[in-house]
Formats: sequence, structure tokens, C-alpha cells
Amino acid sequence: MRMCRLWLWLTALALAMPLGARAEDGHELWLRYRPLSAAGQAGLRAVARAVVHGGPASPTLRAAVAELRRGVAALAGREPPEGRRLVPGALVLATPEFAPAGLQLRWRDLGREGYALRRTRLQGREVTVIAANTDLGLLYGSFAWLRAAQAGAELRRLDATSVPKVGLRLLNHWDNLDRSVERGYAGASIWDWWKLPDITGPRYAEYARANASIGINGTVLNNVNAKAESLTAPFLAKAAALADVFRPYGLKVFLSARFSAPVELGGLKTADPLDPAVRAWWRAKADEVYRAMPDFGGFLVKANSEGQPGPQDYGRTHADGANMLAEALAPHGGVVLWRAFVYAHENAGDRAGQAYAEFQPLDGRFAPNVVVQVKNGPIDFQPREPFHPLFGAMPRTPLGLELQITKEYLGFSTHLAYLGTLFEEVLRADTGHGGTVARVVDGRLQGQRLTAMAGVANIGTDRNWCGSQFDQANWYAFGRMAWDPDLSARAVAEEWAAQTFSARRAARDAIVELMMGSREAVADTMTPLGLHHLMGSGHHYGPAPWVDDLERPDWNPVYYHRAGRDGIGFDRSPTGSNTVAQYAAPVARLWADPRTTPPALLLWFHHLPWDYRMPSGRTLWAELVARYDAGVAAVDDMGRRWAALRGEVDGERHAEVAAYLAVQAKEARWWRGACLGYFQSASSLPLPPGVRPPEHDLAFYKALRFPFAPGRGG
Amino acid sequence: MRMCRLWLWLTALALAMPLGARAEDGHELWLRYRPLSAAGQAGLRAVARAVVHGGPASPTLRAAVAELRRGVAALAGREPPEGRRLVPGALVLATPEFAPAGLQLRWRDLGREGYALRRTRLQGREVTVIAANTDLGLLYGSFAWLRAAQAGAELRRLDATSVPKVGLRLLNHWDNLDRSVERGYAGASIWDWWKLPDITGPRYAEYARANASIGINGTVLNNVNAKAESLTAPFLAKAAALADVFRPYGLKVFLSARFSAPVELGGLKTADPLDPAVRAWWRAKADEVYRAMPDFGGFLVKANSEGQPGPQDYGRTHADGANMLAEALAPHGGVVLWRAFVYAHENAGDRAGQAYAEFQPLDGRFAPNVVVQVKNGPIDFQPREPFHPLFGAMPRTPLGLELQITKEYLGFSTHLAYLGTLFEEVLRADTGHGGTVARVVDGRLQGQRLTAMAGVANIGTDRNWCGSQFDQANWYAFGRMAWDPDLSARAVAEEWAAQTFSARRAARDAIVELMMGSREAVADTMTPLGLHHLMGSGHHYGPAPWVDDLERPDWNPVYYHRAGRDGIGFDRSPTGSNTVAQYAAPVARLWADPRTTPPALLLWFHHLPWDYRMPSGRTLWAELVARYDAGVAAVDDMGRRWAALRGEVDGERHAEVAAYLAVQAKEARWWRGACLGYFQSASSLPLPPGVRPPEHDLAFYKALRFPFAPGRGG
Repeated sequence: MRMCRLWLWLTALALAMPLGARAEDGHELWLRYRPLSAAGQAGLRAVARAVVHGGPASPTLRAAVAELRRGVAALAGREPPEGRRLVPGALVLATPEFAPAGLQLRWRDLGREGYALRRTRLQGREVTVIAANTDLGLLYGSFAWLRAAQAGAELRRLDATSVPKVGLRLLNHWDNLDRSVERGYAGASIWDWWKLPDITGPRYAEYARANASIGINGTVLNNVNAKAESLTAPFLAKAAALADVFRPYGLKVFLSARFSAPVELGGLKTADPLDPAVRAWWRAKADEVYRAMPDFGGFLVKANSEGQPGPQDYGRTHADGANMLAEALAPHGGVVLWRAFVYAHENAGDRAGQAYAEFQPLDGRFAPNVVVQVKNGPIDFQPREPFHPLFGAMPRTPLGLELQITKEYLGFSTHLAYLGTLFEEVLRADTGHGGTVARVVDGRLQGQRLTAMAGVANIGTDRNWCGSQFDQANWYAFGRMAWDPDLSARAVAEEWAAQTFSARRAARDAIVELMMGSREAVADTMTPLGLHHLMGSGHHYGPAPWVDDLERPDWNPVYYHRAGRDGIGFDRSPTGSNTVAQYAAPVARLWADPRTTPPALLLWFHHLPWDYRMPSGRTLWAELVARYDAGVAAVDDMGRRWAALRGEVDGERHAEVAAYLAVQAKEARWWRGACLGYFQSASSLPLPPGVRPPEHDLAFYKALRFPFAPGRGG
Repeated sequence: MRMCRLWLWLTALALAMPLGARAEDGHELWLRYRPLSAAGQAGLRAVARAVVHGGPASPTLRAAVAELRRGVAALAGREPPEGRRLVPGALVLATPEFAPAGLQLRWRDLGREGYALRRTRLQGREVTVIAANTDLGLLYGSFAWLRAAQAGAELRRLDATSVPKVGLRLLNHWDNLDRSVERGYAGASIWDWWKLPDITGPRYAEYARANASIGINGTVLNNVNAKAESLTAPFLAKAAALADVFRPYGLKVFLSARFSAPVELGGLKTADPLDPAVRAWWRAKADEVYRAMPDFGGFLVKANSEGQPGPQDYGRTHADGANMLAEALAPHGGVVLWRAFVYAHENAGDRAGQAYAEFQPLDGRFAPNVVVQVKNGPIDFQPREPFHPLFGAMPRTPLGLELQITKEYLGFSTHLAYLGTLFEEVLRADTGHGGTVARVVDGRLQGQRLTAMAGVANIGTDRNWCGSQFDQANWYAFGRMAWDPDLSARAVAEEWAAQTFSARRAARDAIVELMMGSREAVADTMTPLGLHHLMGSGHHYGPAPWVDDLERPDWNPVYYHRAGRDGIGFDRSPTGSNTVAQYAAPVARLWADPRTTPPALLLWFHHLPWDYRMPSGRTLWAELVARYDAGVAAVDDMGRRWAALRGEVDGERHAEVAAYLAVQAKEARWWRGACLGYFQSASSLPLPPGVRPPEHDLAFYKALRFPFAPGRGG
């Protein structure tokens, strides 16, 4: 009876919470840990009776223990105690220094960050071992075990080992020091630079924890279009305060460095990378950075691209520039991430070929601690691009893969487009150099030990972090696929949906189906058949295929689609710019011929007449129209699928996602209308029979203006 | 036993919540409704057994009922049911249309927004009546009753009536359409213009509810430095979506209007307010606005000030401009709020006198639906200013009072400065025209029926809304004192602290003491003795008394302090600019003579030699030094007082406030050091004996730069 009173009191306390304190606002991301079914709870309790570790715990080990206890408490309704005794049903966190007697493990196979999850009998007791060589490995293993618990894995028969295939798994924040975010669609920058280093708040730790849960181990805090001020003492102190918060979660701080900083901050007359004074300035700066952050990760650099300063300003090469910074960082173990996304004003050729032309000849010329960071495709994060021709073509240079998580060209945060399928498509693309992009990036194809994947973050101050609920899936997918580029997009979607929305199989699968088709729907509503860069100028919002008056030819949509009376598409075959020749012979051969080019890339590589006959039997014009129609239909279908999930998902997030899908349906029609209207003005062909004409005339679409579209940066 | 199992299950559910779901992050503001003491709970339950109303409920009445039920549930641990029967202990929401038989009330006295709270016996049952003429009055009354419940009022002897003394109680958001906020220190704008009108999320309703809880009934969405685009159809649709969310809470939408919009949007050649085409354009625009928002409040206008366009561009007066807009709004019942904060480049005189010079002669020339909105002081929201000389000087014109809630000049959101005392000082100032500023603003002194108070909001995307916990108090105080300008700052602080931090009397009182001295501490650390505008250029952060090179003379701190070998201060007495003469004779006489000027305003009105003898017996120089020292000591004392509250306040917010107070302590020393260093360079006098010298030399302070200080706007 006394017990009953206690419960009564506790319940009263719980009910006394203000309504809405538990609002499903998405802030918890995929770490929601909602109670399992009764059977699931019983099963989980049986294998998590205590969390056992060797203590005294480092902050990282503390984070692992806390996560396990919090996760089990929430999932199973009972918080396991922490202890040192190997009780039956214990969760044992083991390292070589604290390995229970009898534990047999090939520790060396786990590397610095990997882990083993193993159900085993030790000293006569059935226990679960989470083993790793480091506390960070234990943290990763703890998250993995909780993931397995939520996926309904058989926790009594667990025997898994996981080691990250890529060494540097980095977010790239394009966040400015004034808290604007270039290509950010989730509010302002989460870095409150102004209040740092004094005020750190809880959100930075939440961020680090979320990253650790999916294996991300580094973050570049500031925009690649960098300000020199980010390297001044006040801003280094601010970055160091973040590094202090991140450290327990294994998340290293990196900074974007402005190449001309020696001039702007140091008062030097030059930033020439071969100038001894410049080299000395960077060495001293690196020393200063490492005094503030002893585990600083390194510099990310955008040089000689879109107006940024760089070594070419002094007649030097990218290798000269990167190696100068590498020399300054090397004594401290730091890395240079040198971006290959370059295109210069002077170059009148095919922009798609410029990075290859500049970088491929430099293969073997970079210092060992330089990674050349290459975007997934040769243009700029379009809904679909062929893989970048540099992958496989620089065997003596570590190439990092840069993906965009934020959806600059895929509908901002108002469209649902799961990018796991895009990442998968790139990673699995065969380079023709003997392996896939994944095998180049993870270093196995060409024997690289320094490996990296970077994702341009979609994180901001919005309560749900990413601007919409489903955009969280892209952060999640990036982290998981950087850890293991061989994970399938579907498997990752299943993990995410189960943790984020519903562990009920039918609901989860319905959500996954919706996700799996979503990127293709966006590609079809915007840029089908290999079309690209048809978006509005500057903000990249909405359709603007008609734009032809921007300063640089290669900023204009007309440069990319080349639609006219004679046909449509960019001829990159031998009859055109021939940048297809940058690919390895087996690939180049395939893509040089429209007949063997996949329809999804057709107009990327070829300029074809409107009456070109497609594999479907339709003319190119009819196929283009059909793709736009298919895109609209697919988006409508997503709306219907989501509506059917009502009741399977909490009402708050269900309503929110429905509202976003309604926006997407509206904008899909807008894209279709504007593009069909415009391309019809080029082709002068009638719409195929039965096709619904655009809602408005072309003049209407052309007149739309979006002066305050987000993501332009400060 | 079965009951016990139910409790068990409920408790398990509660415990299964992820840790941190109930984080004390300040998001709940003063509406936290934490459980009362056992005695308090019993008492509250007895007077809130049911919520009785006449239904069917309007959205506003629904909000009132929901608030009462939610509040009682959280405070007393039991949610009262909703019903129609007059049960004993009921909370009865009564209007003239639904008044229980036997209820005697002077309904007319309650006006449109007022309410009565009365414990009474009706039909043989003891009940509590919340009575009002409108559902909005019921909502205000419900919040007031919950406030009383939390303040420990004797709910069984309640008999109170409250009617707002000011008609328009408005927030002014200086929010830009790109989500930057001019003078915003709490993250980005909460208006996600980009996603509106489709996506409205929960935060807008939370905002409206918070405003209703303190009686704010209107909000100007966009910056007074307005963009014409805010009046285009897409942005009106966005504003209308917000208005729809706000409506149940009695919160009306207003917009800042750019005077030149007829040129920029309408393609007219002029915005001359006497031009018939211009007048027609505004009439059509007003019609369009009201089609989108039938209860739209009106336009706020900053004209011919700091570069904004206005009627003077066409040789017309402020009255001409305001009346043109008033004419367009009048048919719809809308109001023009025309700001008196003007100063023009051409005017070389004392900036403090310019608004009076331009506006006072226009008294009686404004249309009846125009309010001239006057800042509290003649310069610009300084830590201390004398009240604005226009108050009382325009008896035939409704004058609204504009206060700044955001702390542009009082330490941004990193300093603790409770502004209730500043508001009180202004409201209680005797204008010399027969009454206080409060009596001018509430219309009683000069018989105005149109009355207004505006507060420049400090709200942003930060989780705690205002950038720091204590800045919430300034939003609260503005609302409460706009409802009743006669409320004391202390009473308001008590209400706020009890609801926000602790209802325990000792803790509450300690917090209130800390608040009550806080604004004076800031005034002392920054601008003691009537000094003003010594802040850094543009961003207004930190000390910069040495700045003398800005484009306009009256942007330079040296213009305001005039420190030199001969003394310090701005002579506004008859021997100087004589703007003191703009005040009514009794006030002007007092302030014209340094001997009868309060020390806190001394250097505002007088330029005095360094050896001027102060009432304290010290020389002016020694007094100035002493004030800076007192400021630093007061800030240190605040830190100590707060530290002593550890355990009385949840750990999260206690630690957060402590971190902010540490920043403030650091910056107080910086202000003291920079100002003493600089003024010593002017006075050439030694520091008085025993005074600690500044930490750094003047050159150090002068060299500090803050390139990314917040609040500059987009």
C-alpha cells in the first residue's frame, strides 16, 4: 500500500507536467527511445540488467554508459544500474585494459574506432560484451547496440563487428560568422559565435551526441567561403570552447581557412605559398590553433574558385597551396582538405571538365596529409549527376568524397527527398578504374590510408535541427554511409524510420517506400533525363530555365540545357566538349554514345533532337513531358502514402509532414508548368495528346521573384 | 490493487520518457505552472473543481478554458473537467450572454478587454466567477486568475476588477524579411517568412499565448526600417497566416509600411502624400490588406529618419504623410502609428531637440486615427534618459510611448538588466504639464481615447525566446505595465520571479532584489551621471567614447559627452543648446540649473568642469570614477546573490544565468577600464587615491574590434 502511494505520488508528478512538454517536435532526432512493446521490453531488460565497466571513466566512457542507461530506461522502462560486477545479463563495456577474464577477441581487427557486439558466456554468466580498443569505440558500439535493440534484433544471439571504412567522417558547415548559413534552410547557424566561448548551452552537446550516434567524427565549423577572422585569437577561443564540448563524443573540430589570411591578418604583402614569410605565418598560426585545440582536425580550403583567393593568384598550383598548409599542420597531426570544386572566370570551356583538368595532372604532387575533397559530381550537387571523373583518376592522391546533405538543388527543406539513394548511386558507381567510387573513397582500390567523406550540413537553429522531419534522414544517412559506404540506402532508411517514426514493421516499411522513391520524384519534377542547373539564379529556388543574362556564361541555365529548335542537352561527347573523355575508357565509351548512355544521364552528355527516339519508344520531347508528369504523380503519391500513415505516427509530426508535402505538390506543378512552358517555346512542339497544359503561361512563371529566399549567406 | 497497477503503468510510462524531455531550458517562459505545495494544491483544487462556461465556445473561449484546465492540472495535480453545471467550487466563465442567475456585476465597467475575478455564492454554491464582456476579456481574466493562484493569493476571497488603461499594447518587431533582426540578440527572427503561409508550426501559437498572458494585443511583424516587399501579395498572405494563428489570442497583426512603396511597388513617379494617385494607391493597398486580414491593426511608419523616405521628401509634413495613410485605413478601423524618432542629416542642431521641433508645432493636425509614437527619451533608448519633452506638449494628439525591450544599449542579451525600473521611471516622470508620462500615455491627462504603448521586442529563435532567462522579464514587464502603467516595477518583478523561478518567498525576494538594482548597475558601468551614447559604433556594443570620425556628427560619442580639459557633458541649458526649454516650465527650470538637476541626469543637461562639486562632496571627476566602481561592484554583487540561490532554482537555469553574469562582470570591468582610461586622457587628472587603475591601457581598448556583433540587421 505504501508502494502504491509512492506510485501515486510519482504519477501525480508526471501528470503535473505542463501539456506539450513532451511535444513531438522532432528535436530528439532518431534518438527518441520510445518504449518497446511489452515483449520487447521484457527481452531488453533480460539482456541489460546492469552496465558494467572498468572505470574510472573518461568523459567518453561516461557518455557511453549514460547513453546505454538512458536508452534502456526509455526503451525497456527500467534503468540498468552501473557497476563493476559481472552479473548475469550485464552489458559489459570492455577494452584491452578492462577485459573480463575469458573474453576472446581479435582486438587488433577493431582498429581505433571499431567495436564488437557479442553475446557470450563469461565466468558462467550470460552477458553482452561491447568491446573496443578505445572509449570512443565503446561509445560507437553502445549506439550500435541500442540501434539493434530498436530494430528488433535478436539480442541474445548478437555477434557483430563493425569498423569504419572511412577515416574522416566530416560534416561541413557552410556557416558564416554572422550566423547566416549559406545554403541553410533550417534557420540560423547553431553556432552562436557572439556568445561563445562563455556561453555554451546544451545544444552543442546534443549536436555532438547525435553525430557520435551515427559515427561522424569531425566537423568543419565555418563556411568554405571563409572569413579570415575565423583564424583570429577570439574566434579560435570560441572554436576551442566548442571543441571542449565535442571532445567526449569523439568529434574533432576543423576550420575552413581563407588562403589570403596572411595578408588580411598578418599584414604580409603576399599569400604566395612559396614565400618563406607566408609559410612561417601559417606555421605560427597552426601552432596557435593547436595550443587552443590540441586535437584540432585540420583546415578545409576552397581556393581559386568562385572568387576565393588561392595559390593560382601567385602562379602556383593547388598542390603548392595545399602542401604549404600541410607542412604547417603536419607536426601536429593535422590534415588539409583541399577542395577540387574549382572553376575560374577565365575558363571558357565546359565547366564540368575544369576540376579534372586542374587536378588530375597534380596526382602524386600532394603532401601525405592532404586530402583532395571532390564533390560527387562534376557540376554542383544537382538532383542527379554522373560521378566525378576524378574518382579513380588520381591513384596517388587521397580523394575525399563531398556530398551535400542540405538540399540546395533538391527543394530546400520544404521538399521530401531522401538522399540515401543518391549517395548509394554515387558510391556504387563503377569508375572504370577497377572499382567503385566507394572503393576509391575508402582507399582500398588504390591503397590510400588517409580517407575522408564530407557532408555539407543541413543543420540550423530550427527545433527539428534540419528544417523538416524527413531532412533528418539525410544527416543520418550521411553518417551511416560514411562509416560504411556499402550500406544500402534501404537498410539505412529502415534503421532511421524505425527509430524516428515507428518500429511497427508495416508503418516503417510504408515510410521507407515513400523515402526510396522520393529523390527520383524530385529529379523528375526538376531536372529529368540528365538536365541540370535549371534553378533560379543565386538562391537556386524554383525553375528558371530561361535565364541567359548572368555575368558568367556557366551561371546561366541556358548554358546547361542548350534547348533550341534543333533539340536539347549539353554535348559532352567527342562531337562536343568531350569531357566524357575524362572518364576511364569503359565508362567513357558507354557515355559517349547516346544509345548506351542511361536515360537518366542522357542530356548531361548529349545534345539530341526533339524527335530522338527513346528506349521507351517515345520521342525525346514526349519523354521529357512524361518525366515531368511522372514527377508530379510521384509527389502526389507521396502525399497519399503519408496520409495513409495517419494514426501510425504522432499527430504533430504527421500534420507537419503533410503540410510540407502539400508545398511540394504545389511546387512540383510549378516546376512542371514552367519547364514545359519554356521547353515548348524552344521546341515549338505541341504537347502530346492527353497531356494537361501548364496552369499558367510562361510569362507568369518568368515574372515570379523571391527576393528573400534563404540560403544566400551573409 | 487494480488502481495501483494502473498507477504503476502510468508511472512506468512517465519514467520511460527520455531524460531531458523536461529540460528547464526556459522555453515555457513564465507559464511553467510547476506544482504548488501540498497545501497550495489542496486549496487550488477546492476552488477549481470544474471549468464552467456557456459554450459553444469561440476559439478564444476555448483558449481560456484550455489554459485554466492546463494550469490547474499542472499546479494542483488534477485537471478540472469542463462543464455547464454550476457545481460547488466551479470556475465560471461568465459573459453578459452567459451569466449565471444571481450574478451582480457592473458589466459596463469592464469595457471590451477588462475582467472581474470574484468569489461569490450563486444558486447556493460557492463558485469563482471570471467575468468579461468578451471572450478575450475571459482569456485575460483566466491568465490573471492563474497568476493569482501562483502568487498565493487568497482565492476564496477574490474580488478584483482589472481593465487595461492603454488601448493598443503592441510589440514592435524589428525583424527583416531575411530573418535577420535589427537589434536582435536572441537568434534569428521567429517569423519564418520563407515557409509561410504554408508552414505555421507550433511556435507562433505559443508566442500569441504568451503575449495574451500579459495583455499584449497587437504585434508589428516587420522592421520599422521597412522593405516595400512586406506589402506585396505574397507577404500579405504570409502575414495573414500569422494573423489566423494569433486571432484566438486577441493579438492583432500590424505592419511597418515603407513610405515610398507607391513608387517601389506601384510604379508611381512620386510618393507625395498630397498626390491623388498616391492616395488612391494607399487606399487600394489598405483594401487589399483588409481582404487578407479583416482585423488588421494598422501601419507603423518611420519616415524621414535615418535615411528612410517620408513626406518631407516632397516638402510635406509628418501630418500630411500620416493623414494620407490614416485616410486609407479609416474605413477599415485601422490606425497609423507614426514615429516621432526623427533626425535628419541636414539638421546641425542638438539631436535631442529635433523630434520636438518637428512634431510639437503639428499638434492638432493629425487625423483621429493617428498615434504619434514617441520613444521614452529624446535620444535613443540609452540606459538612462530624461523623459521625452513631447509628452504633455501635444495635448491634441494621441501620443504613444515606445519602449525598447531588447537591450540595444544595455548589454544585449548577455547582461542582466531588468527594465521594469526604467519603464517605471519614465511612466512616473512628472511632465510638468499637469501629470505624469503615464497619464499622457493612458489618455487621462488630455482626454485621449486612442492610446498606445509599444515595446521593441527582444524575441528570437533562441529556445528561451529572449536570449537569456532574465530578458524574459522585460517582455513580461512591458506587457504588464502597458496594461497598467501604474503597476510598480517591484510588483511586476515579484509576479514574474514567482512564476518563472520560484514561488518560495525567500528565493523570490532574493531574485527580485537582484533585478531591482540591475538596471542601475548597467547605467553605472556604462553611462553614469547622465552620460549617453558612448557605445561602439553601429553595433552599439561595448565602450567607445573616443569615436569621433563617423559620417554624421551626432553618431559620434564625442558629440554626446564633449569631454575635454575643461570638463564633460552636453550643455542643453540656456547657455548651450537650450533644448531643456522644450520641457514644461517647472521641469525646465529644475533641469536648467546643475544644482537642481538630479545627478543621474547631470551630464545630459550640463557641461561642467572636472572639479565641479557634487552633492556627495566629491569632485565630478571623483564621482565619475566612483560611479564606474559602483557599477562593477554592483555587478559582482549580483553574481554573489545569484550564486547564493543555488539549489533554489533548477540547476540548468542556475548555471546558465551564472555564466551570463560572469560575462557581465568581465564586461563591466572592460567598460570601466575603457571609460576611465579615455576620460582620464581628457581630464588629465590622476585617479583618486586608492582607486584601482584600468586593467589595460587605452590603446588596448581602442584596438578591440567586433566585426560580427549581432543586431545589425540585413
